[in-house]
Amino acid sequence: MKLLFLGTSAGRPTAHRNVTSIALVFPEDQNRFWLFDAGEGTQHQLLRSKLKLGKLNRIFITHMHGDHVYGLPGILSSRTYYEGAGKLELYGPPGLRAYVESVLRYSEAHLNYELDIHEFEGDGQAFDDGRFRIETGELAHRVRSFGYRIEEHPRSGRLDLAYLASRGAAPGPLYGKLKRGEDIVLPDGSVIRAADAVGPSAKGRIVTILGDTVKCERAARLAKDADLLVHEATFGIGLEEKAALYGHSTFLQAAEIAASAGAKRLVVSHISARYADEDVEALIGHAGAVFPNIEAAYDFKEVCI
Amino acid sequence: MKLLFLGTSAGRPTAHRNVTSIALVFPEDQNRFWLFDAGEGTQHQLLRSKLKLGKLNRIFITHMHGDHVYGLPGILSSRTYYEGAGKLELYGPPGLRAYVESVLRYSEAHLNYELDIHEFEGDGQAFDDGRFRIETGELAHRVRSFGYRIEEHPRSGRLDLAYLASRGAAPGPLYGKLKRGEDIVLPDGSVIRAADAVGPSAKGRIVTILGDTVKCERAARLAKDADLLVHEATFGIGLEEKAALYGHSTFLQAAEIAASAGAKRLVVSHISARYADEDVEALIGHAGAVFPNIEAAYDFKEVCI
Repeated sequence: MKLLFLGTSAGRPTAHRNVTSIALVFPEDQNRFWLFDAGEGTQHQLLRSKLKLGKLNRIFITHMHGDHVYGLPGILSSRTYYEGAGKLELYGPPGLRAYVESVLRYSEAHLNYELDIHEFEGDGQAFDDGRFRIETGELAHRVRSFGYRIEEHPRSGRLDLAYLASRGAAPGPLYGKLKRGEDIVLPDGSVIRAADAVGPSAKGRIVTILGDTVKCERAARLAKDADLLVHEATFGIGLEEKAALYGHSTFLQAAEIAASAGAKRLVVSHISARYADEDVEALIGHAGAVFPNIEAAYDFKEVCI
Repeated sequence: MKLLFLGTSAGRPTAHRNVTSIALVFPEDQNRFWLFDAGEGTQHQLLRSKLKLGKLNRIFITHMHGDHVYGLPGILSSRTYYEGAGKLELYGPPGLRAYVESVLRYSEAHLNYELDIHEFEGDGQAFDDGRFRIETGELAHRVRSFGYRIEEHPRSGRLDLAYLASRGAAPGPLYGKLKRGEDIVLPDGSVIRAADAVGPSAKGRIVTILGDTVKCERAARLAKDADLLVHEATFGIGLEEKAALYGHSTFLQAAEIAASAGAKRLVVSHISARYADEDVEALIGHAGAVFPNIEAAYDFKEVCI
């Protein structure tokens, strides 16, 4: 799977960075994808990518600020042009349902698919879709803001196709049983043990994507041992007070969280429009002293996980 | 003054056309401008133009469909980054206030300028800002949709500077009096008559910008003798029934309205994503038989009036 950054600017779009949205893409599943946040113009960014709205089946919202949600109504409406796209699941903080339903009502928009809206209760929760356990947790921002930890279940090992052929087991439903760890009986009565036919299972991957936040302990918990952490880094050196005042983090603080969480890789995003590319590079260099495997997001950056 | 088309697609953005928005620009006034509709991504289109949100002081909405209003919250929010931009006047159909206020409330957006929202009563009304008389009228669409006729008052004639110099009248406030048609008395007691010092006044210009509509009589009334009519043309030949069903017009119907109104020039916009450039060209050719001075809008097209 991979992340595609669709918007990486804080607050408002610039000529080069759109406001926040990140796609989590499953290339092995015909580029089905999820979105994390949907700032205005996200559907336009999708038009510039290979992703199709008909393949979007989940949207996760971190918080209700405009630069994270004003693109949502357009996505919901334009998705109606993709016949057979099926149900869309929308997750986010309290207020999300009222926002979406009001905008659709005032604009008399009619969706031709089922939209399920799930608002978080308390300061976070967890759910499991069979492949992933998705945990949410409340961060610290001016409004309620959440982070997402997407933890893949261990992946079953590869089938040893040569061994299966030598045993005379033809491809079919029995292969699925083996992958699920079940031994199988062939028509001739002989038994193939899953342990012999399937390689070792692989550890599931962990991706953590956080909403706007000051440096906080919950962020580190959500990012514990993550293969990839996406953390906001609105401000740079010298603007620590401003960051605290507006509920944001600096590049350095994001690096500190990644380090304390034991994350393997950090991509910072949600970068203030005040910083030119060379400023961002310098800030990355500075924060790299704390967490070397840090890089800055830019629009259309892809990160394989 | 001039029009700048910021979005010319119907319903949803394409790779080449954004959803509807048109800027009416006053270059003589430091590029102050008004917007007509604000589909999603309008602020992004502005970033690609020379216009600055701080110079926007009026927005007119034709109707509440998403492809005409989903860019409004982002514009209102991003305008707060322009210190001293001053009051913004927003005009449109009933429902506009509730939409704007709800979205700003759910997203906890705070504006640092005064926003005056004016909803139309009845089927249209007129107001005058001293330079323009702006008339609204209700068209015929699936939801309430309005058109705008912007009629400039006659422009005062040019001062005959050579004559004023020969009479010994130095530039100053007296020149303004002459332009307003008042005779003036010089320090030596001699009188300069406005009729002698000021050229003939020029007829004011008329621009008509319509919201989504089927071909209707009100459209022709709003466009009577207009120097420029902007009419929607969502569909082409063979889709007349679809146009009627969805409350839209064809290229040919737009041309018929322009002809019956005695308009001087017609720009059609709000063009279905199904049409490629060559299709649009063919449809323009066909409709040109009814109204030769027709042309199709495209994003960033400028039309001087």
